Amino acid sequence: MNNQALYDLSYGVYVITTWSDGKATGCAANSAMQITSSPATIAVSINHDNFTNKCIQDTGVFAINILGENCDPQVIGNFGFKSGRDTDKFADYEPKIKNMLPVVPKASAYITCKVINKMETSTHTVFLGEVTDADVINDDKPMTYAYYHNVIKGKAPKNAPTYRGE
Amino acid sequence: MNNQALYDLSYGVYVITTWSDGKATGCAANSAMQITSSPATIAVSINHDNFTNKCIQDTGVFAINILGENCDPQVIGNFGFKSGRDTDKFADYEPKIKNMLPVVPKASAYITCKVINKMETSTHTVFLGEVTDADVINDDKPMTYAYYHNVIKGKAPKNAPTYRGE
Repeated sequence: MNNQALYDLSYGVYVITTWSDGKATGCAANSAMQITSSPATIAVSINHDNFTNKCIQDTGVFAINILGENCDPQVIGNFGFKSGRDTDKFADYEPKIKNMLPVVPKASAYITCKVINKMETSTHTVFLGEVTDADVINDDKPMTYAYYHNVIKGKAPKNAPTYRGE
Repeated sequence: MNNQALYDLSYGVYVITTWSDGKATGCAANSAMQITSSPATIAVSINHDNFTNKCIQDTGVFAINILGENCDPQVIGNFGFKSGRDTDKFADYEPKIKNMLPVVPKASAYITCKVINKMETSTHTVFLGEVTDADVINDDKPMTYAYYHNVIKGKAPKNAPTYRGE
């Protein structure tokens, strides 16, 4: 088996946000895909070890923040390589509130969702969210995971399915 | 709600293949993402109306064929805009057999999977497949859905979540 083939799947680069006891929190993710068109639903995959997983389970809502190619890589570092358990991830990024959910101000688009189903796996929860609101914030080209990896030379957080080790 | 934000999610371009009564069949798809890393699992979303959905339910196995940027667009036309109910989709594409599954000869990589779970939605089944084999066939750059849409000027099949109408 040549695992390199798995890295040929294409993804975007996102921050998935929600609330923790009334405070905005979130984590970086690349696994999100639209499932149905009417009503629009989207599946996102979040590691059990991510604090955001528990918060989505608690609140039943989340926002997908789409990052563009010109997004400051520090946004990914902030949301992808720290834990919301002991860090206020929005300390340097005053959230915009969209449809009652916190949105990362440097995102190029957002989609808010209400959880309507989920599938558990050994390490990740796949949340199925019905889209409740969506908008484009700026015209930056959506960042693909390949762009993040090859151009920005970014790495995958330890909890990502695409983590390749050191 | 601005649905344009939904089109800012990033995808690849794939053909999902399996067997129908011993004959190779398959359909185009853009919704596939890795869920866990060890054991590696991948979720793919297939419309209930796609013949391939029924065939995966019957066989419990499928292959993800990753298409590269230089893949002949007719491959997408063949697998995305015809139905396996009344068409032999492999008539012009003699399949390679990999780990007992048919692989599209013009794919740049393949991943074979065994279904271990699924989530039903109003229009699509999300199959969770454990990876049983994978390999890279050539070094073509994986085609993103944005590349297919913007460079090849391709359209989405009617059953795709990303279908935008005429």
